[in-house]
Amino acid sequence: MQYEILDKINSPADLKQLSTAQLSKLALEITDYITQAVSQTGGHLASNLGVVDLTIAMHSVFDFSRDRLLWDVGHQCYAHKILTGRRELFKKLRQKDGLSGFPNPAESVYDQFTVGHAGSSIPTALGLALGAGKLGTNEKIVAFVGDASIVNGANFEALNNLGLVKRQMLIIMNDNSMAIDATQGSIAKFLLKVRLSHTYEDLRKTTNRILEHLPMFGKKMEDALENFKRTLRMAISPSRLFESLNIPYFGPVDGHDIGSLIQIFKAMSHLETPAILHVYTKKGKGFSPADDDPTRFHSTGPFKLNGDSAKAIATRKTFTECFSDSIVELAKENQKITAITAAMSDGTGLVQFREQFSDRHYDVGIAESVAVDIAAGQAKLGLKPFVCIYSTFLQRSFDQIFQEVALQKLGVVFCIDRAGLVGSDGPTHHGLMDIGFLRMMPNIVLIAPANGIELRAALKFAAASDLSAAIRYPKDYVEDGFCREAFSTPFELGKSIVLRQGTERLAVVAYGSMATEALKAAEVLKVDKIDITVINARFAKPLDEKIVLLLDQGFGIITVEDHSAAGGFGSAVLEAASAAGFDVSKITVLGIGDEFIGADKRSEQLDACGISAEKIAAAVRKVLQP
Amino acid sequence: MQYEILDKINSPADLKQLSTAQLSKLALEITDYITQAVSQTGGHLASNLGVVDLTIAMHSVFDFSRDRLLWDVGHQCYAHKILTGRRELFKKLRQKDGLSGFPNPAESVYDQFTVGHAGSSIPTALGLALGAGKLGTNEKIVAFVGDASIVNGANFEALNNLGLVKRQMLIIMNDNSMAIDATQGSIAKFLLKVRLSHTYEDLRKTTNRILEHLPMFGKKMEDALENFKRTLRMAISPSRLFESLNIPYFGPVDGHDIGSLIQIFKAMSHLETPAILHVYTKKGKGFSPADDDPTRFHSTGPFKLNGDSAKAIATRKTFTECFSDSIVELAKENQKITAITAAMSDGTGLVQFREQFSDRHYDVGIAESVAVDIAAGQAKLGLKPFVCIYSTFLQRSFDQIFQEVALQKLGVVFCIDRAGLVGSDGPTHHGLMDIGFLRMMPNIVLIAPANGIELRAALKFAAASDLSAAIRYPKDYVEDGFCREAFSTPFELGKSIVLRQGTERLAVVAYGSMATEALKAAEVLKVDKIDITVINARFAKPLDEKIVLLLDQGFGIITVEDHSAAGGFGSAVLEAASAAGFDVSKITVLGIGDEFIGADKRSEQLDACGISAEKIAAAVRKVLQP
Repeated sequence: MQYEILDKINSPADLKQLSTAQLSKLALEITDYITQAVSQTGGHLASNLGVVDLTIAMHSVFDFSRDRLLWDVGHQCYAHKILTGRRELFKKLRQKDGLSGFPNPAESVYDQFTVGHAGSSIPTALGLALGAGKLGTNEKIVAFVGDASIVNGANFEALNNLGLVKRQMLIIMNDNSMAIDATQGSIAKFLLKVRLSHTYEDLRKTTNRILEHLPMFGKKMEDALENFKRTLRMAISPSRLFESLNIPYFGPVDGHDIGSLIQIFKAMSHLETPAILHVYTKKGKGFSPADDDPTRFHSTGPFKLNGDSAKAIATRKTFTECFSDSIVELAKENQKITAITAAMSDGTGLVQFREQFSDRHYDVGIAESVAVDIAAGQAKLGLKPFVCIYSTFLQRSFDQIFQEVALQKLGVVFCIDRAGLVGSDGPTHHGLMDIGFLRMMPNIVLIAPANGIELRAALKFAAASDLSAAIRYPKDYVEDGFCREAFSTPFELGKSIVLRQGTERLAVVAYGSMATEALKAAEVLKVDKIDITVINARFAKPLDEKIVLLLDQGFGIITVEDHSAAGGFGSAVLEAASAAGFDVSKITVLGIGDEFIGADKRSEQLDACGISAEKIAAAVRKVLQP
Repeated sequence: MQYEILDKINSPADLKQLSTAQLSKLALEITDYITQAVSQTGGHLASNLGVVDLTIAMHSVFDFSRDRLLWDVGHQCYAHKILTGRRELFKKLRQKDGLSGFPNPAESVYDQFTVGHAGSSIPTALGLALGAGKLGTNEKIVAFVGDASIVNGANFEALNNLGLVKRQMLIIMNDNSMAIDATQGSIAKFLLKVRLSHTYEDLRKTTNRILEHLPMFGKKMEDALENFKRTLRMAISPSRLFESLNIPYFGPVDGHDIGSLIQIFKAMSHLETPAILHVYTKKGKGFSPADDDPTRFHSTGPFKLNGDSAKAIATRKTFTECFSDSIVELAKENQKITAITAAMSDGTGLVQFREQFSDRHYDVGIAESVAVDIAAGQAKLGLKPFVCIYSTFLQRSFDQIFQEVALQKLGVVFCIDRAGLVGSDGPTHHGLMDIGFLRMMPNIVLIAPANGIELRAALKFAAASDLSAAIRYPKDYVEDGFCREAFSTPFELGKSIVLRQGTERLAVVAYGSMATEALKAAEVLKVDKIDITVINARFAKPLDEKIVLLLDQGFGIITVEDHSAAGGFGSAVLEAASAAGFDVSKITVLGIGDEFIGADKRSEQLDACGISAEKIAAAVRKVLQP
């Protein structure tokens, strides 16, 4: 496909030659370019289309090869990547040796931090601003944050500390009234009310007033701001929200009016104090299916572009889908079950639950810490809360799980989706530390189901238990075809199950979905007349003592986990064996090594990290024929 | 000592018989009682004295045996404990078999959650309110939170989600314009400005206006609130801060006027919606030394009561004090060093640094997440930030350390004070998970100095390195008398040092201050003609390969760490040994087991957990004479 303007843009400097009309045309071309590419690769679509105009305007004013642009969450940086010399590589988005779906300093000087979690843009911008203030350098610092992320506790802590900064620092609040799901919380409601009270004409007037007053800015900030505020005649203004934080506020303005945005950025870049600019955008703009259903197109797999309509390519059943069905079944039987999520009803599979049990479903927005505490409070009263958070985001709740759940011995169930390697989202999104950080806490049971059959059984087990349980499962399809009988054994606290009994004195002990890989390895090895035992651990804590007793029976053990080898399941086996005085030299731990894993297909990542069926088979051969 | 009123108070029910004058007298008696007891046991003084009046008023109105009172941080619950049947036991505050210095449901039905970290009261109250709403029960829920804690990100996330609650839930904001240090951040400054603009007369008027309007409340909340707001004539009102969050705000009122407080609580207890009451108190009220210097008396050891003046009992030099001197020395040499803390300049030993390098010192208030990100931003620009946070509070920054530091490979230094068992503060404050959670992250070096000599050397090593380093040290005195020559060996990445070479084929490998315990164990064993080798590991990551090579030389190894045995230093040794194919049955791991450790002297805790010199010696004997 050929693009009249886009094809000539090799760096943001090329934007400076273009007229506003040309920039608007470029925006349409980029929208098309992103849609085409994402239909092939999958990725975040709606959020990226919403900020194409804004991104063009930012790059037309700032020079982010030396100025610093911080993206919050980071999944909305596609136009930014395309404009900063990565247009061709963008076709290999989220693939091995292609582009990351998130900012990545290794790719470009235009990227500052590799991020994927919400709540880092204002805090790190604050650090950069304080650093630049200390060093006396004059680069501009811009934090770009959505209305859903700005309310994250970490961003709030940074906003509350913005007074430390005595130099320029611009926060652009991209308000699309929509996080991944509709934004939660009082501030979101407040912003929505403001938004609804505005006409397009109001936005124009505000823009004009900003431009009228801004040239006076600089040292005389305070007077000018007062003048600006006096001319604001909105019935409800978000300014009061930021006033108590003492942050100069401007807006709201239209985030699709490139010409005005450029003028505003030019004027605001001279402010010698932190300030916030409130911009309205439309998620999914320019691609009607995404425009109509931004949640569906928030993070999408590859899809077919059919003229203007898009249809997802059909897929097999995932762990998330099995969870979705199981939690609904359980909630029907048990009125005490509630479900809590942090802006991830869709991603964690709670949409069905929300539809059927809206009064038992709580979405707190991107606020993982409070999600866990709500569960703690509810469990204290005898309810049975299920907290549904991705493994990597649960890291935000480490301290709450420790103090507010484990220390209190409360029966909260953690449903940890995206545990293990996650494929194309890359290093910010892998969930490789949950076993390690949770197993240090007393009073928590750690479970990993091997497949859909077991996920259902694990949830049932946890629902019936008084204990706090953490159930981890990967971003993957379930494979329920193997050993159905063994897998159907009900869960019993701290009990593993034998999936196959071999003739070799060697057992592969798998945790979670690695059991499927281990079974496949066993099939492969059978061809070589190697007949191994495969055990499905089910629990990392309490660990089945039968596992280490295998050593006493002369077995060698290979543990397999989709988790950091340091501190994980294998490490728990080593500890138990060492405590029991067994020879641990006969244990081989397979897990993720001490490195960050880039984007690739999950199956390729499993292989590269040595935990695919093939690599497990190779490890077995190595142990047996050293 | 005899008290006229206090001696007769055995439960909050006894308060209901008393006149306001008697309650005021009771407050004076409790103030005296707390001061006497804390002078013997040590503890949090100033914050407790400030809320005696408020606590009496709360217990005069609510019945917290069924209503639920949530303390934030929890260190201000002394009067509450004294009033709820724990008066006598209070003399054994923070001691084994005595009372915890924090709320503890195991002690009393009047306590809800065992807490010690800031930012849990509003989130857990939110969970309780949602739970009670779901269950249809009518207990009152009260969250008690200081002005320093309310700005913590977790509390903010809960405030932003308060709209989920459709029933009573009262937040009492105890505003003493002072966290442990003077409160940081824009909201604090704003609240201070409000406070300074008020006279005592204003507070009276506000109180009267609340009482005038509140009886009308109930269903007609919104109208009444409007009426109340109209009568507020303050130049600057904190209401606007809470308005944007849509939280009804009342106040400020005088937190030492028990009679009025009781009337206000009675009226407010009927509100059928969440609301916030803003109360002014004076930290350290009623004990003039604490009143004059609340920071000194925030958390104090035992001190001598000399009439009204108090003098701390002189003590030996602590790790914190060594850190304090060392960081100042390093900062003199290196202009790029900055120091960042979260409301803990005093506790982490940064007061000297702040005095000498105020432009390189950053205190973000109780906001550990943003503290780490400020460091990340500064490191990105080539500065050398030292983040000073207690081990247990660093749990709040797990995700920031992962994403914003480790993943970016930035040279941030984490100075992790209070690592290990902390003595009388008990389970919320032990730092038993830092090795485990940090060693799963690539790009971070883990260091533990054995004593003051090594702490200085470790800081010097970290300052000169491009790597991110986490340096852990306990709440303890340094013992620099042993093996001075060995300890004076400069730090080299991943290199352990031999402290003594024995004749037995057994080495105790100690991490951090456990080296001193190991040396003492060796002395004890010498008497029995057992001559062991003692190794000071210095690094948990990268681990010195010489350590596991000892196995190859026929040595047995006993690892010792002041940390969870699961996932910790010993686990790292097991992993390395297993990976190298050595017989790990010859490794014994000594560390903290899978349980929460109550308050006691640190030395007693070390012994109870099996890592004192005596217990190390016993473990050696067991290995040698099984």
